This record gives sequence, structure tokens and C-alpha cells, in this order.
Amino acid sequence: MRTIHIIGIGAGDPGQLTLAAAEAIGQTDVFFLLDKGAEKHDLIALRQQLMARFARPDHRVVAVADPDRDRTAAGYVRAVDDWRRERADLLEAAIAEQLPDGGTGGFLVWGDPALYDSTLAVVEEIQARGRVGISHTVIPGISSVATLAARHRIPLNRVGRPFLVTTGRRLAAGLPDEVDDIVVMLDAHCAFIHYVDEDFDIYWGAYLGTDDELLVAGPLREVADQIVRVRQEGRDRKGWIMDTYLLRRRDAPAGR
Amino acid sequence: MRTIHIIGIGAGDPGQLTLAAAEAIGQTDVFFLLDKGAEKHDLIALRQQLMARFARPDHRVVAVADPDRDRTAAGYVRAVDDWRRERADLLEAAIAEQLPDGGTGGFLVWGDPALYDSTLAVVEEIQARGRVGISHTVIPGISSVATLAARHRIPLNRVGRPFLVTTGRRLAAGLPDEVDDIVVMLDAHCAFIHYVDEDFDIYWGAYLGTDDELLVAGPLREVADQIVRVRQEGRDRKGWIMDTYLLRRRDAPAGR
Repeated sequence: MRTIHIIGIGAGDPGQLTLAAAEAIGQTDVFFLLDKGAEKHDLIALRQQLMARFARPDHRVVAVADPDRDRTAAGYVRAVDDWRRERADLLEAAIAEQLPDGGTGGFLVWGDPALYDSTLAVVEEIQARGRVGISHTVIPGISSVATLAARHRIPLNRVGRPFLVTTGRRLAAGLPDEVDDIVVMLDAHCAFIHYVDEDFDIYWGAYLGTDDELLVAGPLREVADQIVRVRQEGRDRKGWIMDTYLLRRRDAPAGR
Repeated sequence: MRTIHIIGIGAGDPGQLTLAAAEAIGQTDVFFLLDKGAEKHDLIALRQQLMARFARPDHRVVAVADPDRDRTAAGYVRAVDDWRRERADLLEAAIAEQLPDGGTGGFLVWGDPALYDSTLAVVEEIQARGRVGISHTVIPGISSVATLAARHRIPLNRVGRPFLVTTGRRLAAGLPDEVDDIVVMLDAHCAFIHYVDEDFDIYWGAYLGTDDELLVAGPLREVADQIVRVRQEGRDRKGWIMDTYLLRRRDAPAGR
């Protein structure tokens, strides 16, 4: 039997590591890293910094090449399923070969493993196959959503009211009725543009928690163009971008 | 000018404190605590433990009596507004009297200050009045929602799909269409009971992150009674309960 810690390490600020996450890093014999290519060097550097500070001296790092994901596939869920299966194949082999029975493996997950992250599902798929005996724990982390709210110093909800967490893809397709506060993740196409004629405020952030952090807030119709521009500039400069935002309908009826 | 740190300290497990939160606790001259009466002794003890470990030796603690809140008021939002105003009165006076100009005050907030917590709004109300000059920072914390997901080892979302965060009061009043994954907070009346004839799984947790933690998961129709019973037993035993849960519609059409 092997133990796997799935460790949330926060959105990008090393100060967001929790004491429990630091402890789990210290218990880990082998870290499994999914190498996403060259584009996110800064994040990889930060992960290495955390291991240098908190991991035991004899820890090992096993890099696994991340399979390409077909982002153009018409069937989005199916493409994700295929990609997850391929990932599980690679990781299952890596765990079987590199982590001795009785050992402890670890995954360092950006943000919180519970939010739009596939590590949990991949680990469960490996368990379900039953060829490698593993038990796993999850250590929650500070998400980019929590970081967005903290940096803008806003609550995610209004008093007694709900909020929706969704993706850029879904937002572009429309909003459920009765939802006036929407957190958007995984938006590669600035889906907020579709709502620029409605009365929303937007609170946007990119590279949250890092030295490159970008923040823009204001009435959507006034700042949408600025966000599109700032986002493109960041992407051109660094070669990648990770951003998230909150849309808040203005003057929504109180208590609706 | 005074600085106020609004510090998320996690759901109840001292290991959930982040390094940044520990640092902010160490910078704080005066902690302002809202005394909610006798019922949550365990939480108060944990807060004291964190201060003993991370605060400077010469820190001071100022307890402010929390005004009673009219939970039976017909106008819920209005009752919250009144209560917040009264709280702002008390805290404004406490800050003016107890925190010298140039000093640093701190609020230790359970979970994450961005989720169904009033500290941010109260501090902003004090700022808006302009009688006491304060600037504030927010340090995000691990929420009870993130803890719920971690303990059940589940993601909050399904692949590419949204989820709603709402209150027991709202859940009892109905759900927006197209939402199949719902996180419920502040539910004093087991509002999940209204959905027991629909095909949901429920992942429930109380006293999350503490030694008293309770977890129940399963098909809602099979475990609803058990949750009602376990919840009542916990409340009888300890005199208070804090719980949260995720409802996940079973067999919802993939990609819906």
C-alpha cells in the first residue's frame, strides 16, 4: 500500500501555503509533477522553492510528460475523459515504478484540488483499476478565487445571497436566472464581453498571488476593453496567463 | 492612520493556517474579538491557541460584545443591515479607543473572510464614516467549503460544469434551473429535506477540521434522516453546530 497526498499549495504566493500542506510536503518521499511544457516556468520555479524549503532532503521528483489535450474537440467532456485516461496510464506506471510499497507520494496542486483540477479524478481512476494499491488524502489550498476576493477586498456573496462558480465556456452560453454574482474560471476568450451591455461590475485578476499580479475592477462596460488589452499584454509578455473574475450585477433587487 | 488585517484562519484545524496568516498575526498589536457568548468555546480556545503560538508577546486582545441579531425578523436583509450598523458602532469605538494611530489591528475570521462573513462589510462601514482613519488588508483562509471537499475527497465541480454556493434559506425556496451541484451554508433547518424525493447525492460535514468533525455522504434519500439525527446529537452534545454540505444531482446529463 502506498499513500498519496494531494496537496493544495495556493494560487502562486508561497505565503499561501498552509501549515498542514508544509507538513504533508515534509512527509512526501516522491513528488509526481506533470510537466506542462515551457510556458509556465514561473509556477514550476515556485513549486521547486516550496520543495526546497519544506521537503525532506532525500525526497525525489518524478516528472511525467503531460499528454496533449485536444482543446478543439467538439465533445469537450469526452476530450477531457480521454486525456484523463491517458494521464492515469502515465501516472499509474510512474507510481508503480518509482514509489516503493509503503512509501508516500505527493502531488502539488495549484490553488485548491477541489476547484477545476483533475488530480483527484486521475488518482481515483488509478485506484479503481486496482493494479497499484494506493490510499489518498487531500489537503485543501487557497484557491485563485479566494485570492481574487482577498486582493479586491470583497466578499464573493452578497448578504444572504448565492453565487455561481462557472467556466468561460458556460458563461458565453448564458446564465441561469436568479444568479447575480458569478465567479468565472478557465476563460480563454474573455466571455464577459457577451455581457458588456448589462449592468455588471467586474473584479478581474491575473497571475494572482505572484509578483506579476494584475487587478482591474469597475463597471463592466467601462473596463471590459481595458481587461482585454491588459490580458493580451500579460500573455504576450509572459507567454501564458491564468486569470479569474467575479461579475456582480449592479443594483440587483435586494434580497432577490 | 491605522492598519487592520482581516485574517482568514481556516475552518477549525490549526494546520489550516497559512504562512501569510501567521505572519499577519505576528504583525498585529491589537486583536479585536467579537464575543458570541458561551456556545462556541472550542472555537475561542482554538483562536487563543493561534495567538499564543504566532502573536507577538506584547499583543493585546480587545473583546467586543456582539450585538444580538434578530433572527426572526421578517426582513432578513434589513435585520442584517441593522446588526451590521450596531456592530460597526461598537467596533469603531473600540478601534478609536484601543488602537493607537500607526498601530496594527487584526480580526481572526473563521474560514475565509470572502464567504458569508460580515467583517469586511463592517470595516468598510467604519471607513466610510471617516471618523477613524484605517486601511485594511485581507488574508484569504481555507473555507469550510474547501474543507468539506477535502474531507470527502471530492471536487466541488464536475468537469467543465458550474456549481452554486447558497444558503439554507435560499435552498428551501427553490433552485435555479441548470444547476446540479449546490454547496449550502448557513442552514439551520436541514433544507435538504425539501429535495429528498429527487435524485441527489449529499456530502455533509459538521465541525469541519476539528476533533469533533462529523461526515456523512450518500444518496440523499437514504442518508437524509441520518444527517438530521447526527446533526441534532452533535448540537445537543456541544450546544452549537456549524455544518455545510454539497448536493450533487445524480446522473445529470453529461455536459449539460
